[in-house]
Amino acid sequence: MTVQPNETHDVSLRSWVASANQTGTDFPLQNLPYGVFRRQGSNQAFRIGVAIGDQVLDLAAAHAAHAFAGYTELQGGHFTNAVNASNLNALMGLGAPVWSALRLALSRVLREGASQQGALQACLLAQGAAEFALPAQIGDYTDFYTSVHHATAVGKLFRPDNPLLPNYKWVPIGYHGRASSIGVSGQQFRRPVGQTKPPTSDTPVFGPAKRMDYEMEIGIFVGPGNALGDVINMDKAESHIFGLCLLNDWSARDVQAWEYQPLGPFLAKNFASTISPWVVTLEALAPYRHAWTRDAEDPQPMAYLDTPDLRESGAFDIQLEVLLQTEKMRSDGAPAERLSLSNFRHSYWTIAQLVTHHTVNGCNLNPGDLLGSGTQSGPLAEEAGSLLELTEGGKKALTFSNGEQRIFMEDGDAIIMRGWAQKEGCARIGFGEVVGTLLPART
Amino acid sequence: MTVQPNETHDVSLRSWVASANQTGTDFPLQNLPYGVFRRQGSNQAFRIGVAIGDQVLDLAAAHAAHAFAGYTELQGGHFTNAVNASNLNALMGLGAPVWSALRLALSRVLREGASQQGALQACLLAQGAAEFALPAQIGDYTDFYTSVHHATAVGKLFRPDNPLLPNYKWVPIGYHGRASSIGVSGQQFRRPVGQTKPPTSDTPVFGPAKRMDYEMEIGIFVGPGNALGDVINMDKAESHIFGLCLLNDWSARDVQAWEYQPLGPFLAKNFASTISPWVVTLEALAPYRHAWTRDAEDPQPMAYLDTPDLRESGAFDIQLEVLLQTEKMRSDGAPAERLSLSNFRHSYWTIAQLVTHHTVNGCNLNPGDLLGSGTQSGPLAEEAGSLLELTEGGKKALTFSNGEQRIFMEDGDAIIMRGWAQKEGCARIGFGEVVGTLLPART
Repeated sequence: MTVQPNETHDVSLRSWVASANQTGTDFPLQNLPYGVFRRQGSNQAFRIGVAIGDQVLDLAAAHAAHAFAGYTELQGGHFTNAVNASNLNALMGLGAPVWSALRLALSRVLREGASQQGALQACLLAQGAAEFALPAQIGDYTDFYTSVHHATAVGKLFRPDNPLLPNYKWVPIGYHGRASSIGVSGQQFRRPVGQTKPPTSDTPVFGPAKRMDYEMEIGIFVGPGNALGDVINMDKAESHIFGLCLLNDWSARDVQAWEYQPLGPFLAKNFASTISPWVVTLEALAPYRHAWTRDAEDPQPMAYLDTPDLRESGAFDIQLEVLLQTEKMRSDGAPAERLSLSNFRHSYWTIAQLVTHHTVNGCNLNPGDLLGSGTQSGPLAEEAGSLLELTEGGKKALTFSNGEQRIFMEDGDAIIMRGWAQKEGCARIGFGEVVGTLLPART
Repeated sequence: MTVQPNETHDVSLRSWVASANQTGTDFPLQNLPYGVFRRQGSNQAFRIGVAIGDQVLDLAAAHAAHAFAGYTELQGGHFTNAVNASNLNALMGLGAPVWSALRLALSRVLREGASQQGALQACLLAQGAAEFALPAQIGDYTDFYTSVHHATAVGKLFRPDNPLLPNYKWVPIGYHGRASSIGVSGQQFRRPVGQTKPPTSDTPVFGPAKRMDYEMEIGIFVGPGNALGDVINMDKAESHIFGLCLLNDWSARDVQAWEYQPLGPFLAKNFASTISPWVVTLEALAPYRHAWTRDAEDPQPMAYLDTPDLRESGAFDIQLEVLLQTEKMRSDGAPAERLSLSNFRHSYWTIAQLVTHHTVNGCNLNPGDLLGSGTQSGPLAEEAGSLLELTEGGKKALTFSNGEQRIFMEDGDAIIMRGWAQKEGCARIGFGEVVGTLLPART
């Protein structure tokens, strides 16, 4: 099930929210991503919002103002409860026909000339005056490993003789991550403390991690789930995906190297992960579907991971940018500097393949579960989605315009990730950004 | 913080619930484990219950009958809400002083001669007339790997030259598991389907897993959690543990062998895990604390994993039994047959060490989180907690008294796990059992 571009994608559409019509906005009328917000400093419950230009539309208030009257999918107690919730889980669970009707309704009432403008003006809050919470209560978080370029580069560092393991091109490798420590953009967290083993010793030492890193990922929010024992087949997989966000999977490389065998990363990752406040729907991204390719020598996907439209349009063309801002840059008023620019279309596995693979054994997904794509590194060195790769395992320092250098992160460093889809003849679909800051270790 | 034996542990205590005084019961007055139940076939909400003999005491009903009057820790809205909940999360979050007061109150009102007998008789339901739900809503599930005997035996099969990895004796190895597919005793699940690679081929095949196995584990339910960034130190770790249960971590060994590198087990484990309905409190187990030892040549634990009473009483003496009942045994009315008998005291890491290690990097735990101990295999071959070990990697069939043989599980097989602590001069503290049945793969 793939949503085709429709009326809501028309690049000529303009909104009565003037900022949504500005060149370069992440949130034009054609995007309409969902988040969870409240007025900054308020102690009220969080509410569901839709980004439009530099504003947030309060979804429950819009519903109360009859913005969605006349859509049969948007009536009844389930829908009303879902839009009045303090997270997106229930809306995620309602499924694609509801999401699609809601998008159409929002597109129409926010258009220039809409009769609802007067009523809805009061349902807007400037994004700058809002604070955001996690979009959903994340029941389970799974992280995949879908960039073959990342897997190869990291594999070279950990296993020089055997960089890419024999299963990689057959199995969408994934593992379970920690849900409790996922935070929303703005998250600040202490440098983790733990065991690491110096290369020159047989005995580990205990202290703050020294090789602190980020990972640039796409997060995938699950919509309707499946019952335990049921499989979500490829042709239905995307109807179980509510949308995508940006995800920074912070990693302590020295902790990881010592702990990860044989059961995978644990304390190296579970101290924090940060996601963007906005979840961009697959329907908004429909114009940016992209061909999914395999190298000629690569195996074709096994039948359960294949589908007729996989090669034509299984991937998404989404630019992914990572920037770093040191404490000194901040205090000097200097902007963050770019570390890398890559694209999600390089992913070796598609989001539909991740959902199908995850459930092929009967594992049950629930609305609001989060899947991570794994670090998105492209084929070129400057497209690497982590410091581990950019610094060639910590051997090559990066130098910034103020002369500061980095191998791994230093205390006070902020990492800013941005994502957007853009091309001629289509509206720009942005993800906003996800920012996270490393604080000194607890003493 | 270690609870000392007190009035509630007195072996001479008898209950007015006659079945609680019978020799061999898992649930004498000295145990008082918690679960979540309702009348079988009812469609009412689940309620918190306490096992006593062959009965369940309805905790909210007992509270309404003023069973806990006179205990300052057991008053107020938080306590009332916690006992009236449909899972144990809130009670788990209230902390050790409340748990301890509640245990004392329950011990007194259920004793022979208690004035509350008349009022509480109406709060009992026969366990045989009850159905059970998961004791808690499990936010995050972490599985450890605390049996050095299991790690060595499995390591020999997967890595003959390198059975026990260099980090094992330093790091309590753990990884995140799937919370959504954890079920309560009685769970039936389909044989998972997935990719496996025959040893004779470079190419994987797709189909039902052939090497289906169980893992005998202890589950550890977290009580009060910690804020992100805070550490739970060893001296406080046990006050963050509500209690223990039995856990069967089902495993598809052939899926595991193909998928597990480099990020650990995923589809090989996340199709189902099954726990016992009853959670036994650490206070009930106080008489069964056991010395924790290391071999002379082993490294001592790093300072953050050490504590003055670790060696004297860090471990628990809990017998762990695994039985198998084939479909034929069931239809012939033949009993299940024992596969192994081991003991939790062999664990290389203590439950306090697991909590401290999990949080040393600032990872936050929440009430109702579940930690698995990992497969509990003892030093002897017949103490192995999985078929993989008992059959030496699938090379040696097990023969049952009706002539049936098993290498791995066959469709229709039920695995029954039991746990209990017992010694002269103390009441038997039982865990009841956890049963799970393998159904044929989906076709």
